[in-house]
This record gives sequence, C-alpha cells and structure tokens, in this order.
Amino acid sequence: MNEQLPKTMKAAVMPKPGTIVMEERPVPQVGENEVLIKVMAVGICGSDVHYYENGRIGRFVVEKPIILGHECAGMIAAVGAAVSRFNVGDRVAIEPGVTCGRCSACKEGRYNLCPDVQFLATPPVDGAFVQYMTIREDMVFPIPDHLTYEEAALNEPFSVGIHAAKRCRVQPGTTVAIMGMGPVGLMAVAAAKSFGASRIIVTDLEQVRLEAARRMGATHVINVREEDAIERIQQLTGGVGVDTAWETAGNPKALQTALHSLRRGGKLVIVGLPAQDEIPLNVPFIADNEVDIYGVFRYANTYPMGIEFLASGTIDTMSLITDRYPLAQTQEALERAIHNKSGSLKVMVYPNE
Amino acid sequence: MNEQLPKTMKAAVMPKPGTIVMEERPVPQVGENEVLIKVMAVGICGSDVHYYENGRIGRFVVEKPIILGHECAGMIAAVGAAVSRFNVGDRVAIEPGVTCGRCSACKEGRYNLCPDVQFLATPPVDGAFVQYMTIREDMVFPIPDHLTYEEAALNEPFSVGIHAAKRCRVQPGTTVAIMGMGPVGLMAVAAAKSFGASRIIVTDLEQVRLEAARRMGATHVINVREEDAIERIQQLTGGVGVDTAWETAGNPKALQTALHSLRRGGKLVIVGLPAQDEIPLNVPFIADNEVDIYGVFRYANTYPMGIEFLASGTIDTMSLITDRYPLAQTQEALERAIHNKSGSLKVMVYPNE
Amino acid sequence: MNEQLPKTMKAAVMPKPGTIVMEERPVPQVGENEVLIKVMAVGICGSDVHYYENGRIGRFVVEKPIILGHECAGMIAAVGAAVSRFNVGDRVAIEPGVTCGRCSACKEGRYNLCPDVQFLATPPVDGAFVQYMTIREDMVFPIPDHLTYEEAALNEPFSVGIHAAKRCRVQPGTTVAIMGMGPVGLMAVAAAKSFGASRIIVTDLEQVRLEAARRMGATHVINVREEDAIERIQQLTGGVGVDTAWETAGNPKALQTALHSLRRGGKLVIVGLPAQDEIPLNVPFIADNEVDIYGVFRYANTYPMGIEFLASGTIDTMSLITDRYPLAQTQEALERAIHNKSGSLKVMVYPNE
Amino acid sequence: MNEQLPKTMKAAVMPKPGTIVMEERPVPQVGENEVLIKVMAVGICGSDVHYYENGRIGRFVVEKPIILGHECAGMIAAVGAAVSRFNVGDRVAIEPGVTCGRCSACKEGRYNLCPDVQFLATPPVDGAFVQYMTIREDMVFPIPDHLTYEEAALNEPFSVGIHAAKRCRVQPGTTVAIMGMGPVGLMAVAAAKSFGASRIIVTDLEQVRLEAARRMGATHVINVREEDAIERIQQLTGGVGVDTAWETAGNPKALQTALHSLRRGGKLVIVGLPAQDEIPLNVPFIADNEVDIYGVFRYANTYPMGIEFLASGTIDTMSLITDRYPLAQTQEALERAIHNKSGSLKVMVYPNE
Repeated sequence: MNEQLPKTMKAAVMPKPGTIVMEERPVPQVGENEVLIKVMAVGICGSDVHYYENGRIGRFVVEKPIILGHECAGMIAAVGAAVSRFNVGDRVAIEPGVTCGRCSACKEGRYNLCPDVQFLATPPVDGAFVQYMTIREDMVFPIPDHLTYEEAALNEPFSVGIHAAKRCRVQPGTTVAIMGMGPVGLMAVAAAKSFGASRIIVTDLEQVRLEAARRMGATHVINVREEDAIERIQQLTGGVGVDTAWETAGNPKALQTALHSLRRGGKLVIVGLPAQDEIPLNVPFIADNEVDIYGVFRYANTYPMGIEFLASGTIDTMSLITDRYPLAQTQEALERAIHNKSGSLKVMVYPNE
Repeated sequence: MNEQLPKTMKAAVMPKPGTIVMEERPVPQVGENEVLIKVMAVGICGSDVHYYENGRIGRFVVEKPIILGHECAGMIAAVGAAVSRFNVGDRVAIEPGVTCGRCSACKEGRYNLCPDVQFLATPPVDGAFVQYMTIREDMVFPIPDHLTYEEAALNEPFSVGIHAAKRCRVQPGTTVAIMGMGPVGLMAVAAAKSFGASRIIVTDLEQVRLEAARRMGATHVINVREEDAIERIQQLTGGVGVDTAWETAGNPKALQTALHSLRRGGKLVIVGLPAQDEIPLNVPFIADNEVDIYGVFRYANTYPMGIEFLASGTIDTMSLITDRYPLAQTQEALERAIHNKSGSLKVMVYPNE
Repeated sequence: MNEQLPKTMKAAVMPKPGTIVMEERPVPQVGENEVLIKVMAVGICGSDVHYYENGRIGRFVVEKPIILGHECAGMIAAVGAAVSRFNVGDRVAIEPGVTCGRCSACKEGRYNLCPDVQFLATPPVDGAFVQYMTIREDMVFPIPDHLTYEEAALNEPFSVGIHAAKRCRVQPGTTVAIMGMGPVGLMAVAAAKSFGASRIIVTDLEQVRLEAARRMGATHVINVREEDAIERIQQLTGGVGVDTAWETAGNPKALQTALHSLRRGGKLVIVGLPAQDEIPLNVPFIADNEVDIYGVFRYANTYPMGIEFLASGTIDTMSLITDRYPLAQTQEALERAIHNKSGSLKVMVYPNE
Repeated sequence: MNEQLPKTMKAAVMPKPGTIVMEERPVPQVGENEVLIKVMAVGICGSDVHYYENGRIGRFVVEKPIILGHECAGMIAAVGAAVSRFNVGDRVAIEPGVTCGRCSACKEGRYNLCPDVQFLATPPVDGAFVQYMTIREDMVFPIPDHLTYEEAALNEPFSVGIHAAKRCRVQPGTTVAIMGMGPVGLMAVAAAKSFGASRIIVTDLEQVRLEAARRMGATHVINVREEDAIERIQQLTGGVGVDTAWETAGNPKALQTALHSLRRGGKLVIVGLPAQDEIPLNVPFIADNEVDIYGVFRYANTYPMGIEFLASGTIDTMSLITDRYPLAQTQEALERAIHNKSGSLKVMVYPNE
C-alpha cells in the first residue's frame, strides 16, 4: 500500500542560524513501531524563531544543520510492521517529544521532564519542516474529519495551556489572569476556558492581540499601555485578586504584575522564559499569602483532551492563523514570525501544498 | 469547682518596643464556649523578638501596650457553660489563631489565611506571657500525661514544619534539604522525619545548631562556612538534587541555594521571611525544571498530628530548650533570644513557676 | 428600612408525614449575623418527598411538626446589626446547611461532614416553605440580575453535581457516564459539562428525561429499556470504558452498571441513596482495575462557582422546571413530585406569589 | 568479565498445577538493555500458591509449563551492551513487572495498569524460581550492602503496602486499621508506619501473626476470635472510627468490618482479592459518610522508597522469614506456604545455595 510513496522529498534545512535552504532528502524508512507522516501543517513557535535568530536556547545549541518545526499534523503515509492502531490515510496530530518510558520521570507520569526525550526541532533532533517524517506510533493521535490540520498543529501550543491549567487546577469559578497574548498566551486563554474558568482577564500591549484573546474566551482585556494591570485586576475582583495568574511572555514586569494580582492562597504559573536569569520577586508576599508558584515546561498527557476540546468547536482557533506559507518559503515564514507586530498572530507552513 | 481561682494575675506587658513591665491584671472571665488556661510554658518565637525589637512585622504594628507570646501550653483552670469536651485539670496544647469559621478561606480548609483570625501576640491581640488566659475551646488540644508542657508549646513551631511537609507532600523516600537551623528549622527537621523522609540534609553557620539538627533527625549536615551547600547536596544526591528544599531563616542567599539544590520537578518551600522584599530568583530555572514553589504562612490542621508525633517519643525535642525563665524575667528571656548565638536554641518562659 | 415588613407570614407546615397545613407564623427576628430572606422560589427535592411520604431518612426522623424545603433563593428583607456585605433588596441564593466552623471536618474544608450542621428541612430544623426565613449571612450568596430565583434555587442540586465532579476531578477530555436522569442526575450532567467533560453518556428509563439530559449537555443517551447500558458504553468508548461513572438514582442495578462501565483506573461516584443497605458489588473488579469509589454527601464550597456557571447561560436549566405552585399548594406540589412520571421534571414552589 | 558464567542452570518448573520439577535450562542471553541476575532469594507469594493449587487467577490461566516466583533479589551477573548504570557484582532488588512505557496508563504514571505489562510468574511469563534470569535494566534497583537479599525480596510485598499508603495518603497522625496479618498485611503495617501513621490497629485470627504485627509497628492488635473488631476500634478511637482501613486477606467479612470501622470521610483500601466476586457492601453508609474506596492492584513507583525504608533498619522484617528452602525444594516451600498455620509467616527460596 506504500507503493505511491516518493523516494525523495523536500526539506527546509537551517545550515546555520539565519539561513534556511531547501534540500532534497530521502523519504525516511519507517521503523517497526513507527509511522511515516505526510506533514500537512506546521506552526511556527517562538522557539523556532529563537533558534533561527540566536542559534541556541539555554543549554541547547545548534551545532550542525538542523530542521526546525515541531507544531505539526499530517496524514499517515506508511506504518511499521508492529503498528496496528493506524492505517495509511489516517489524519493525526503529532506530539513532538519522544520519551524513553523508563526513567523515573516517565514512570511517575511527568514525562515532560524525561532527560532522554527526543524533541522535534531541539538540537540535535530534526523537526517537521519536511514533507515526510517518521515518529513512534504512540506519539500520534487521530483527529476527527472536521478538525483541520492547522487546528491539530495548534494542539501543541494548546497543550502548554492545558498543562498550565492542570498544574494549577483550574475549574469552574476559577478567576484567571493571563499576561501576554502571543500565540502561547492566546491558546492558554482557550485552555483556561476549556477547564471552565468563569473569568479570564488578559493583558497585552497590542489591541489586535487583545481582540484575538476575546475570541479565545477572555472575559476582560487590559491594554497595559493604557491601564495599570494590578489596579484593574483588583477592581475587577472586588479587591480580592485572582485565583491564578499566568505569565506567558517571558516579561519580568509582567511576571511581577502576575504575582501581585493574586488573592491570598493564589497560584502563579510561569510559562514564559525571560531572557535574563535573575528576576526580583517579592518573597514576603509569597510567604505571607501562601502563594503557590508552578513552573511549566512543555506538557504531558494533554493530546487527547486537547483534540477533543478543539474538535468541540467551542472556540474558533482557525482565526489565529494570520499567515500561510508553502515549505519553500519557510525562511519568509520565520521572518514573518519575528516581525509579527502588525496584525500577525500565528504563522503556518504547509509542506505538501 | 473554680473557687480556688485567684482574682488577679501577673502579666508581662510590653508598653512599647524594647520594654517589658510586670502588671497585675484581673484573671479573665471565661466565655460560654471558652476555656480558661493556667499557662504553664511559653516558647519565645522570632516574631516575639521582632515585635520587641522593631515594634512591627509588615502590616502589623504595635500601637498600644501588648502582651507577647504565642507558643504555649497549660492546664484547664475553668470551662465555659457550653464546654463539654474539657474538665478542669486537663493538660492542653493551645493553637494560637482563633479563626472565624465563616469566610471562604476557613470553609476551604485553609483557615491560616482567614482574614479575621485573632492570633495571639499579633497586634492588637494579647498573647500568652500571662498566668491565665481564655481561648475558644476548639483551639485547645489535650496532651498525654507523659508529654511535657514545653513539648506541647513546641507543637507550635513544629506545626510550621508539619505544614511545610504537607504542602510539598513529603513521604518515605523523599530527600529534603532544610536551610537554617534556628528553632523553626530544627522543628522542620523533626517534621520532615515524622513524614518518613529518608534523607534530610541541613545547613547552618553554627556547629551547635547542626548538632541539634542531627538530634532532630538530620542525616547530613552542611556548615556553610566550610562547604558549598549546592555542591555538597549535588554530591550527596548523585548529581540529581533533592526532591524538596525549605528555606526557614529568611536569608536570600539560602533561598537561592535551596532553589538550585532541587532536582527537576523539585519543590521549594518558603518558610522564612526575608527582611527585604525583592529577592532575585532564577526564573528560567524554575520554568525549565518545572519547579513548584510553596509559600508557608503559619499552618492549618496540624495540632493533633503534631501532638501524636511528639508524644511518640521518636525525637528528643526537650533537648532544644536551652534557656528557662520565670514570667518576671520575660524581658531577660527576650534579650537572651535576641543574642542566642552561643549555644542557645529555644528560650522558654514559665508563667506559673 | 425594615418598617414595611409584615408581622406575620404564611408557612406550609407538615404536622405529620403526608399532611401539609398552612399556618400563620410570626416573621422571624433577624440575629446579629443573620439576614432575613423573603423566599421567592423553593425547589422540591427527593428528600422532601421522602420525609413527606415516609417521615424519616436513615437516622433523621420527623418527630414533631416540621417545615420542609431547602432548595431556595430569595431577596434580602432585613439584615442583622453586624452584617455589612448585604443590603435590603439584594437577590441571593441560599446554601441550606449552617455549619459550626469549629469541628475538625469544618476546619479541614469538608464542612458537609460537620456533625453539628443545621440543615434546612432535616429534622428538627425547619426549612424554606415559608414567606420569610433567617439564616447566617455567610450562607447567602448574591446572584446577578439576569439569574432567576428558580435558577438560583437549582444551584442546590447543581452543587451536588459540582461536588461529584470535584470529588472525581472531571476535566476536559474526561468521559463521564451518569446513571439516572431525575433532577439530581440532570443537574449532574450540567456539572460534568461545566468542568469540561467532553463526552457525557446518560441512562434512564424515560425518554422525556433523556431528552432533558441532552439539553443539559449529555452527548449520548441510553434508554435502558431498549439497550444494554454496559454494552453500549463499551461500544461508545472503543471497548475501554469511561473515566468516571456516577449513580444518582439509588438504584442497585444502576450502581452495578456504573461500576462495570469503568475503564481500568476509573472512578465510581455514589450520589444516590438506595433503599436497601447492602448492595452486592464486584470487589475483585474494584481491586484488579484499581477503581476509586467516592461517596457523595451533599457538597462543600460549591455555591459561588455554581452561580457563576448558571449565570453564564451555557445551559438552559429553566427548561427543567415543569411544574409551578404557590405556597398554599405545597401539598399538591409534593404530590406532583411523587408522581412525576409523565413529563414532570422539577417542581417549584413560590412562597411570595 | 562474564566468563565464569555457566552455560546451564537449574529451574523449578511447574509443568501443571500441583507439580514442580527441576529442569536444566540454558542460562539466558542478556539483551542490549538488560541485566542478567543471579537470583539469590525469592519469597513465596499468595499468587504463587494460587497458581500452584488452582492453575489460574481470574483471567490469567496456566496453559503450559511455567516458572513461578516474583518476589526476588539477586546479584548482577552480566550486563547488556547499552547498560551503564550497573556492574557485575551489584546487589539489586527486582521489580517484577516490565511495563511498555508507551500506553496511556504508563504515560500517566499508573504503569501498574499497563495492559501490556510482562509480570514475572503471571502466565505466560516465567518467574524467578531459577538460578539466572534476565530483565530490563530499569526494573532493577541497587541495594545497600547491609540490606539482605531476603529483605530486598520483601520489598515486593512491601511495595503493595506502600502503594496502599500512597493511595489513601497516610501521614503522621493518621489512624490505620489493617485487616488480615498474612505476609501482605504484615508488610502493610510496616508501610503504614513508614508513612508516619501514629496508630495502627490490626486484626487476625492467629496470635502468632498478631505478635509479628507488633514487631512491624502495630500499636493495637485485635484477635477477631476473641473480640468484636468494629466495637474495639470504635472504643480505641473514642467512637470516631479510623481514618483509613485496609483489607488485605480477601475476606468478605473483614472487608465489611473495615468499612464500618471508618470515621466520616474515611478511606477504605481493598488490597485482598476475595474468592467470590459479589460482596454485599453498605452503600448508604458509603454515601452518607462520604467514604473513599481505593482498589489496589500491585504498585507503581515504590521500589526506591521501599528500599530506603527497609535499609533504615526501623523495622526488623527479617523476623518475618520463618521458612527457608533451596531451589530443589521449591515444591516443599509451596506446600509449606499453603499450610502456614502453625507459626509460619514468610517462606523463602534460595536458588543459588
């Protein structure tokens, strides 16, 4: 059934930071427990942009040519000998971190902390800006017919928001403040809503993003150019503060704002990675108010629930996709994601169009 | 049965910071749901010292004469008309924060965050440096005959440690690092041990405190004058880091050390209140390693379990009491607690000796 | 401001099981921390019917005249001297169990297990089939203008569902089966939906109830007259079983069906009270599949979140109210609730119309 | 370094239920990620006895010759090419269930529910009554020099107790009742103690077992031949009931006793597998008292903490081993375990003595 598969494919390779070149590569062979994916949609993530611009994120350094892209979805093009759950033609979302399943982090259900994870587009592992890729079958999740490949690709940043919501146990009645309405922040709004949060207050500098946040489920938006966020949040919560506040943009000021927006016993969630290491935080405030702080690193056990919610149609995530590029224009797509000030939200690459 | 009660009693009153005077006051009348306590032992806490020296802790300001002391135990001397659980002569530990029972914090089981709590020796509420005091009966817990009043008074700082252990879910096999071996840190060691922690690594500058920590259950001690704590903890944990690290001394450097001692997925507990507000913390470390941080403010639902453990005799907490004073020397006791460098650990006041 | 209050009011009293008589009683005096409620809507609950028919539920026995009704909402008609949060005219939902705030259950946040709770319409405490009633102010929750009194009264059975959802931690992606679509079951469907459950499978014998369940958010309905529920649920879940199954009707067969509908590691929630005590349950199934079973007794900390969700307008709970009676016809209302086979769902009494 | 390894070894094979024969088999080849274990001690478990007597446990049926034994410890005799954590000569405990690491149960941290687990001595997987066996390296845990192989083998039944304690969150102050003092019950006592339980009340019919329970940490023992267990537990807890009760023997009456020993909000843990499926349980009691019931199936993430506690020397588990056999007498060992009434507790087989 695999006879129509081409022998070679196109790949958008980054030989060094700042440059993407198209290469012709062999279509990979599928291993026994793997599936071959015909990649249909790949979102551009902040980390892709970061590797493209800086060549490193923390301890992960681009030392040889790499293929970026990890927010992806596609169609099963071939299955390994031991694969029984999938058939050629199945439409799937792809969880991009292949974990070992044998370390203590994996065994405790926190596989996002697996030290041996092979994560797409994290050096030296190649990513999804290709026409075909293989991955272990358990990383692949079927999607219903009415869910688009783009939405399935958005399940990756959505997963970060779901993980945040799980970490701080959002439920109906929870009041959530989310700082920073980039793509991760916007999907975090959708995640808070999916868990039943009744009030979702968001902040950003850009009106277009605040408007997008409303479409994702934000009930109150604060443009921090115009209003003091802490003051406004205190006002909206009757002087009590929110149950939980999430910083998604890596902005130190926003992180401090998030902390001081909390009620006693509130929960601060750190999603964004600031450029600098040391951020001053009000420690007596944390102790006196018995604040919980949760770091968020990727996600675990989020894919099926994310797909179910996106498929429910509650939220129009398609409206977040503002820019579309074919694989041959991956570099333009990355450049667009860098300069996404004027109306650009999510940039998507289509490797097989 | 109350006929032998005196009409008046002695009280050690602080008319202004830095001065304690003995006053003769009426023995208080017991209310319907209250018990009258003949106070037998009162430990001196860092907060007593702080009010004595500085006249304030954060938003709590000494504005009129106050009686300090809140780590206390005693004997029931009279019971209110509606009290059925206690009899005159019962020996009891006293939980010093009378909560409202009606706010959302109370109803959710986090009564330590009750905004209307009446906490002994927190302005303007008088404390326990008196011969007799009344308190609502549900704040009083019976102790077995073989538990001393001093041990029962130590249940208060022990409760802080228990609350920390509950917040970060210590269990057998958990590796715990505790920074700062003042009385709170020492009782925190005992708390970690009571929850089954197998390895308890502690730090301090003073050898006498580190030796006391060993008696409380510490398995490894680090004198930070002599060793680099992070390095030593990494070595002791095979380069992994500890499951949870607690800062108990309010020392910014110790807090940063605690954070960097953690394994991936580890938990930082903030018990100590630093003098300054803003402490630089490594936020990318928190996010990348998915650290949990828990502020600790007093405790909730700890008294019975604390008494049971102290009564089990597993740990010799009496050895922590290095200095003993009668009520008339409360000022000397406070001064001793300030200058407790050379061998002094816990200072205890005995109002009825 | 209270001058317009009448001196007397009408009350629907049950002098003995099976009989309701209208009495003229004094409007109660409001205590210091209490509010006086002008009762606007009272739903009839299964327990009201049970006391009316049988005169007892377990250890609670009707031994003297009692006023039934506890699912209620109304308007503040007077406030006690110490009440500051409310004003005359405020519209409120009423949580009907006044807890002590001082026992260990209350202090641990499980106040529904308070042994000293004063619960409306549970002997010997009078309930809400009256024109005016007093209650402690912390039992009263403001409702927005657009929420009807009936909806606010429905927050009581909704709270049972919310409590069930909290007990078994429903979140997006959770598959829930709910057995029995009486009023409690129907509100439980709404609760599961409010927590983000993606698939809600329900069972009942009556088509009208299954249709109402769809309006509450059920995604699949099973008429157990026509289909084998276990078989159908296995089919709907690809042979895996549901994450959680709730029995709401007190039917032994439904409870066994619920248990066997679970996936490995699934959670059974027992909401309904069967008439008989001993029900045979498959214990090896529970052990082998590591099932959790959670008993549900009333609820705790559910009122604000329930009101927020009902006010969000996501679900049309008003459509559950099929029968409306003035206070003078409380007996007819109770009789209707007994014989609610043909199209009757929720019966509501209006004491001030 | 493996040159001294013999080519063949002895194995105690069960060709059919009720018969054990000694066979000479090739020493297995070690796979890339595996270690070869020289088996030093194997405890006999109730399940071994069950397969020996009945040839099946539930859906697991002995259909061809099988080697029993899964409570085992030994020495590393060879390591696979990819193994770096172990060296020949290392002393280790063996977790006997090799999980897939890829299913949703594994990914959620509940790997004991993995449908594809390969569990030693569960048909058709061979077990540990052999001189040498291979196993994936992550199933193997180093033990300190002072821990005996027998103690390391006891970590398996101890793990069941630890898992029970984790499921119901035992902590200091928790009162625990444990029904049935067979080997699993006895190790459960040790587990409850390791989590800090202050009061551990146990029941059995045999005085010798109750005495062993005291050595494991039981604070109160009840011989159910002589006393009514529910009555005695109520008396010991001041009429309140215990926080948690565990049934470990599969006895329906003991399970009912356990349930009725609970306080309101208490937790029932089902460890033992009854011979019959349907056991009558008091469902209104479960609902009214908001009981939690937890099924326990094996364990997950318990080995390191179990080893740490056993190595701490707090409890003398060696005293549980009453009968010792060489591999050649495996059948006698199994027969002894069947008829272990008079003073026999744990039966141990030594394959390399």
